[in-house]
Amino acid sequence: MVTWFGRRPQRNEAPRLSSRGAPQPTEKVDISSLAPGVQHFLGQAAYCELGEFESLARAVATAPNLAVKEGLSAAAGRALSKHHGLVTEIRRRGHEPATEMGPFVVSLDEFRRKTSGADWHELLLSCYLAGGLLEDFFIRLSDGLPRDIGPRVAQLLGENSGTDVLVHELQTAIENDVELGSRLAMWGRRLVGDTLLVARSAMPAADPAEGAEARIEPVFTELIAAHTRRMDGLGLTA
Amino acid sequence: MVTWFGRRPQRNEAPRLSSRGAPQPTEKVDISSLAPGVQHFLGQAAYCELGEFESLARAVATAPNLAVKEGLSAAAGRALSKHHGLVTEIRRRGHEPATEMGPFVVSLDEFRRKTSGADWHELLLSCYLAGGLLEDFFIRLSDGLPRDIGPRVAQLLGENSGTDVLVHELQTAIENDVELGSRLAMWGRRLVGDTLLVARSAMPAADPAEGAEARIEPVFTELIAAHTRRMDGLGLTA
Repeated sequence: MVTWFGRRPQRNEAPRLSSRGAPQPTEKVDISSLAPGVQHFLGQAAYCELGEFESLARAVATAPNLAVKEGLSAAAGRALSKHHGLVTEIRRRGHEPATEMGPFVVSLDEFRRKTSGADWHELLLSCYLAGGLLEDFFIRLSDGLPRDIGPRVAQLLGENSGTDVLVHELQTAIENDVELGSRLAMWGRRLVGDTLLVARSAMPAADPAEGAEARIEPVFTELIAAHTRRMDGLGLTA
Repeated sequence: MVTWFGRRPQRNEAPRLSSRGAPQPTEKVDISSLAPGVQHFLGQAAYCELGEFESLARAVATAPNLAVKEGLSAAAGRALSKHHGLVTEIRRRGHEPATEMGPFVVSLDEFRRKTSGADWHELLLSCYLAGGLLEDFFIRLSDGLPRDIGPRVAQLLGENSGTDVLVHELQTAIENDVELGSRLAMWGRRLVGDTLLVARSAMPAADPAEGAEARIEPVFTELIAAHTRRMDGLGLTA
């Protein structure tokens, strides 16, 4: 159990993310007071999707065969299209994408570097797990954005990411190679920590006096639960 | 003057490529008998656009600043979208994209490797010049395809490639650095030879008895003229 504020969280009922087809939560955590400003959100989410695109493009370039290359190129296209959708939102508000993304370059580039993996399968797992977790996170966080933008962004980010090809490649490789499977399970566990740190950095500093901590924790519990389901789906132990 | 068949070509009036805004030719070379079969065309053109996407994605990953990265990502998206458009045509005809692209992988990967350049500016110039020449070429060649597909493919390939950002970056760099300019001029001259060889490989072997040679040569003259205009536009001597 990962704890983000140095003490064990209240064990609230953990809501699930509807975008992954899991049961609806009976009680939804109110995230509105925890969401960053719109500009912060758009800049960070846009640069996240650009990074996801770059990682997928690297996976395209090093794909072992043409059919997989072709499938990955479609997934790269989806990430790029989400990025451009967010850039459009930034422009619509009269801002420059480069200026808005600027503050997140150093930390997100470092995150991409750390999670790029030692080989093609690790890279693929990073694209799938970190990409999925961050997309879940930004969709969740968009609940706290103003109504003239939040739902539109949630819809954009919730569009099919074309990751079936990643799941298929990883499943097949894991089934056929026990050693690879155990290495990827380790890699997946490492990834979740680094990725949650990125997510945490997208939220304002928690103020214990206001009880922010107790409200944030269930959101991370949700994210970890969705991550665990992705690991399970690949045949990996989270 | 590049000669492709071991003797000097007839100096026909060289038609210009309409897609680059140049004057219309008074006399158009009939390319129909020189065009490859539809499957050959689609497989090769699709893999060419995928390669262009991969090169642009590498340029995105190594871009010197965020505004340029952003512009290049749009250009990469355009190449990817053309690739996927060609893949759709392949599927529409009941074929598998990977099977159709397969025969061109070795030669086109080798071409990409040879033309990837020693640094970011050389890579950018390759994307612009080789990408532009090959796109011109496939548009020209599509004249020889059946009417139920040729015009649609020509329209797809003729869509804006988003290369303004490449031109702007190259122009600025060349203006500010004479030495870089002369290195890039050399690189541009090398590129045209390698790129024309790719184009030549897309056409059936010329049969001198049928006069194919004399009909092919003006097409290459057109391509070289458009290449020269691109070089001129950057301030480089072709």
